[in-house]
Amino acid sequence: MERVYNFSAGPSVLPQEVLKTAQTELLSYKNSGQSVLEMSHRSPEFKAILKETKLLLRRVMKIPYNYEILFLQGGASSQFAMVPMNLMSRHKKADFVITGQWANKAFLEAKKFGKCKIIASSEDKNFSYIPKMKKDAFSRDSDYAHICLNNTIYGTKFTKIPDTGKIPLVADVSSCILSEPLDVTKFGVLYAGAQKNLAPAGLTVVVVRKDLIGTPIEHTPTMFDYSIHAKNDSLYNTPPCFQIYMCKLVLAWIEKLGGLKKMQEINFQKANYLYEFLENSTLFKGTAAKEYRSIMNVTFTTGDKEVDTAFINAAKENKIVNIGGHRKVGGMRASIYNAMPIEGIEHLVDFMQRFEKSRKL
Amino acid sequence: MERVYNFSAGPSVLPQEVLKTAQTELLSYKNSGQSVLEMSHRSPEFKAILKETKLLLRRVMKIPYNYEILFLQGGASSQFAMVPMNLMSRHKKADFVITGQWANKAFLEAKKFGKCKIIASSEDKNFSYIPKMKKDAFSRDSDYAHICLNNTIYGTKFTKIPDTGKIPLVADVSSCILSEPLDVTKFGVLYAGAQKNLAPAGLTVVVVRKDLIGTPIEHTPTMFDYSIHAKNDSLYNTPPCFQIYMCKLVLAWIEKLGGLKKMQEINFQKANYLYEFLENSTLFKGTAAKEYRSIMNVTFTTGDKEVDTAFINAAKENKIVNIGGHRKVGGMRASIYNAMPIEGIEHLVDFMQRFEKSRKL
Repeated sequence: MERVYNFSAGPSVLPQEVLKTAQTELLSYKNSGQSVLEMSHRSPEFKAILKETKLLLRRVMKIPYNYEILFLQGGASSQFAMVPMNLMSRHKKADFVITGQWANKAFLEAKKFGKCKIIASSEDKNFSYIPKMKKDAFSRDSDYAHICLNNTIYGTKFTKIPDTGKIPLVADVSSCILSEPLDVTKFGVLYAGAQKNLAPAGLTVVVVRKDLIGTPIEHTPTMFDYSIHAKNDSLYNTPPCFQIYMCKLVLAWIEKLGGLKKMQEINFQKANYLYEFLENSTLFKGTAAKEYRSIMNVTFTTGDKEVDTAFINAAKENKIVNIGGHRKVGGMRASIYNAMPIEGIEHLVDFMQRFEKSRKL
Repeated sequence: MERVYNFSAGPSVLPQEVLKTAQTELLSYKNSGQSVLEMSHRSPEFKAILKETKLLLRRVMKIPYNYEILFLQGGASSQFAMVPMNLMSRHKKADFVITGQWANKAFLEAKKFGKCKIIASSEDKNFSYIPKMKKDAFSRDSDYAHICLNNTIYGTKFTKIPDTGKIPLVADVSSCILSEPLDVTKFGVLYAGAQKNLAPAGLTVVVVRKDLIGTPIEHTPTMFDYSIHAKNDSLYNTPPCFQIYMCKLVLAWIEKLGGLKKMQEINFQKANYLYEFLENSTLFKGTAAKEYRSIMNVTFTTGDKEVDTAFINAAKENKIVNIGGHRKVGGMRASIYNAMPIEGIEHLVDFMQRFEKSRKL
């Protein structure tokens, strides 16, 4: 079967080169005589994989040594609770910027554990932009301030990291991690579900400043305590070994390509190719404000539900899958993560052009 | 590289047939043009996989329809908190039988959320047996009673399911699920980390009686609420898709072999082969009481630490890996889960015989 172009928002496409390596090694990893799928997490073979993955992530993302890297499970949805449970023990207060459904979910979950304040929101215009905010917008006695750096559903991203002063900034970076360089030092916690730019679904990466680890609130489950995982180097219990291995392969692929600077260049090229077409199209139009357009999730619509559906169905017949928008918003969305090759975008734009032309006849 | 015999306690060996299917389908699952590693969890292809896995598990384990099957993350260690958080809202009391480290961890974690009582323990003899208990040993007003059905570290198992009367019995079945038929109706909750008999690490299966779902205690994270996962058919957030797919392949493999009756027969044959050798050996001896010997984890020692270490090292040179006992107890442990072929046991016994002979020279 010929491979399709998979524009899924996550789980999403992986580099073919990575998949091929995984396939080759699937029955025996290097000289071990075992698959990584079967490997004891306490074996020297797996410990070497874990160590290399961590080192690669530190190098590729330039993560300073006062930050801990944790390989966890449960997705960003678990972080929505883990962050307040670990960070809210002091003032029991946190600030939130609501730029979409995921940012809102983080807010709603944190409310279970303390006082949560909405600092700014872009709900008034269906989350099509990022609200502006001043430094003094954030409470002085909050335990943290939370943002969702790239909004998968609405196709927007923070183009400037808000200045929260001394309050630790926590960001959900699930859909933009590794897409471009990021100044880690501006954050207290970064977290990401792996299934977009890191690895297959089932792994969650947390990068947390070490001084923020250690005082979870009462009734925090052991598995939700950052300090437990930090102390045990992500081996407190059995981790998702295969996903960590795949993450290693993905990171090595990025490094070989030239790292995050190069990745950013490629991603801008890919996104701009699609955005330029959208700007000139008479049928399709982008839904995100130009200033805040994501380079990972490109959202668009024809403005007509029936035409949107016809487009999505016709696309499927042309090797373009998962191009439908999130069920909350409809329309279309092309998730063009690192592993989507430029040929995928060219193929999509070519098909959109043909579809547009066919509607004029 | 020739495959080794991997006696790891988990993650552990998978059926070669299953690995080969996964390898073949790794770049394109059936006619989808995508790898399961890249597949949207909301796609029809993945939903079909999820549905089939659930149906297979229900059929193979004979799970009645008043039980919900959940595919979660976080391992048994997360269940140590999830069980009390979901079940302890009424009396805030639970009973525990301590038969090893994992049973004890479940007890210690539950203590965070309510009053926990130890009903029986086998700690006096280093957990080498299962304590006897009467029906009236269990509190009448407990929210649940907890056991660990098979004790991976100490090589023991409950040969009779304790009668807890009306109190829901909760069992950690991580290291014995699918090893033999089990009367699910005797339990309120069964949970298992997948990395022994179900799938690669990163998936947790929970089988829970539907009437026990729905009233978690205050401050339960959304992701720790059984009702959320039940309502959303394990798709509240992105599940570990690849592990679910592997679980499907493993279940189909078991069903093709003849189901759990046949599996039990094979497992008894394998375990007995090893236990009979141990009973007659002048060098090695089993550590578990005969009456409660596990058919999944066979623990043994020479009684001499140095000889144990020499054996473990020599074994490695003979394609036998991960035969060392748990770091807490030392000695040796052969984990002989479903996927370990009889040839693996024969190979091990043959090597043990040769090792024993060489010591006599």
